[in-house]
Amino acid sequence: MPTLILVRHGQSQWNLENRFTGWWDVDLTEKGVSEAFAAGELMAERNLLPTRAFTSLQTRAIKTLHLALGACNRLWIPEVKDWRLNERHYGGLTGLNKAETAEKHGEEQVHIWRRSFDVPPPVMDKGSTFDLSDDPRYAGIDVPQTESLKLTIERVLPYWESDIKPVLASGETVIISAHGNSLRALVKHLSNISDDEITDLEIPTGQPIVYDFDENMQPGERQYLKDR
Amino acid sequence: MPTLILVRHGQSQWNLENRFTGWWDVDLTEKGVSEAFAAGELMAERNLLPTRAFTSLQTRAIKTLHLALGACNRLWIPEVKDWRLNERHYGGLTGLNKAETAEKHGEEQVHIWRRSFDVPPPVMDKGSTFDLSDDPRYAGIDVPQTESLKLTIERVLPYWESDIKPVLASGETVIISAHGNSLRALVKHLSNISDDEITDLEIPTGQPIVYDFDENMQPGERQYLKDR
Repeated sequence: MPTLILVRHGQSQWNLENRFTGWWDVDLTEKGVSEAFAAGELMAERNLLPTRAFTSLQTRAIKTLHLALGACNRLWIPEVKDWRLNERHYGGLTGLNKAETAEKHGEEQVHIWRRSFDVPPPVMDKGSTFDLSDDPRYAGIDVPQTESLKLTIERVLPYWESDIKPVLASGETVIISAHGNSLRALVKHLSNISDDEITDLEIPTGQPIVYDFDENMQPGERQYLKDR
Repeated sequence: MPTLILVRHGQSQWNLENRFTGWWDVDLTEKGVSEAFAAGELMAERNLLPTRAFTSLQTRAIKTLHLALGACNRLWIPEVKDWRLNERHYGGLTGLNKAETAEKHGEEQVHIWRRSFDVPPPVMDKGSTFDLSDDPRYAGIDVPQTESLKLTIERVLPYWESDIKPVLASGETVIISAHGNSLRALVKHLSNISDDEITDLEIPTGQPIVYDFDENMQPGERQYLKDR
């Protein structure tokens, strides 16, 4: 039967520095590398071995995938990368330290941007250091200027329906290595979580989440692989 | 214009132990990891950045690709893995130390197997430790029992024509991370090398080889990237 494994990338340099990251391409820390490797070791130990992989265009998710697949001897499976699995785009907050942002805009406003369902942060300034409009990785893609969780969901779910679900439906064990908010989008859909509740749901880093699907492609309960 | 980069995987554990490896899936040594990383650093330094990647189904080539792409910040490019880029299958010699094999079969016979164009080694024994017929990675593929260089070429070149060349022809900078003999197959074809000469051509590990193509998809001279 189809099985889906979701993995949020291990700790990144900006997770550690508590900066808004979004689409900015930061690398894993040593801790993040260990988390990714441990995720793969757990898959090997529980004998839940992916046969197909999807990830974003961001280094931290791609490396997490490779480290995890390396640890369970599955580097050879087909792998597809797509921008629609990228992290939520944090607009003008990208690169800012969270404490500094709170000082500048007020705690309450920052809380709204981080935790509301449909309020996007301010757009990124044209010509900002963190503007990725001209990055060759996003050639042909309309790079968002900012995204709420709602806007993130609106590009993740069509990709899930068109590209991932059909592969899963053919009986594969699919792993998706992605980000806090692109995975929230999927968990909200699969576990039928309300707009209000999803913004408080934390997806832990490097901790595989598993869904089994029935013959009608209905997902079962959300489980942590470590508890399975 | 289209550019092709060929990289032979860095040193593997069995390169180091001087054992016939073929399709057996051994990992890179620390030296091999450094070689792969250096290949990517050289690509970054010379500003020759791949836009599409192909590799085999073998860990040592896949890891070499990932390390090289990581070093030049190109992990996000599309990547395709295919068994037809695998190393030559060494049949019954797989796993044997080269000195022991010479003792058993005679120096001359081993030299023939290693350096003749069309004499394959003996086939692998059924049920050998090194038999990969039931490996899920090769499901649906007729795993060879043994291969000469000629037989290796006969599966590499059709794949080159059907899958790699069309991508290259669309103007991409293609990297192929593969093995001594699958790369010999390509170099023989692209540099028009005779059957007799190709068996003595050594492809160095972790040293990118570059071909520029003209508008008629005719390859220019073979160059090492370090000399370019």
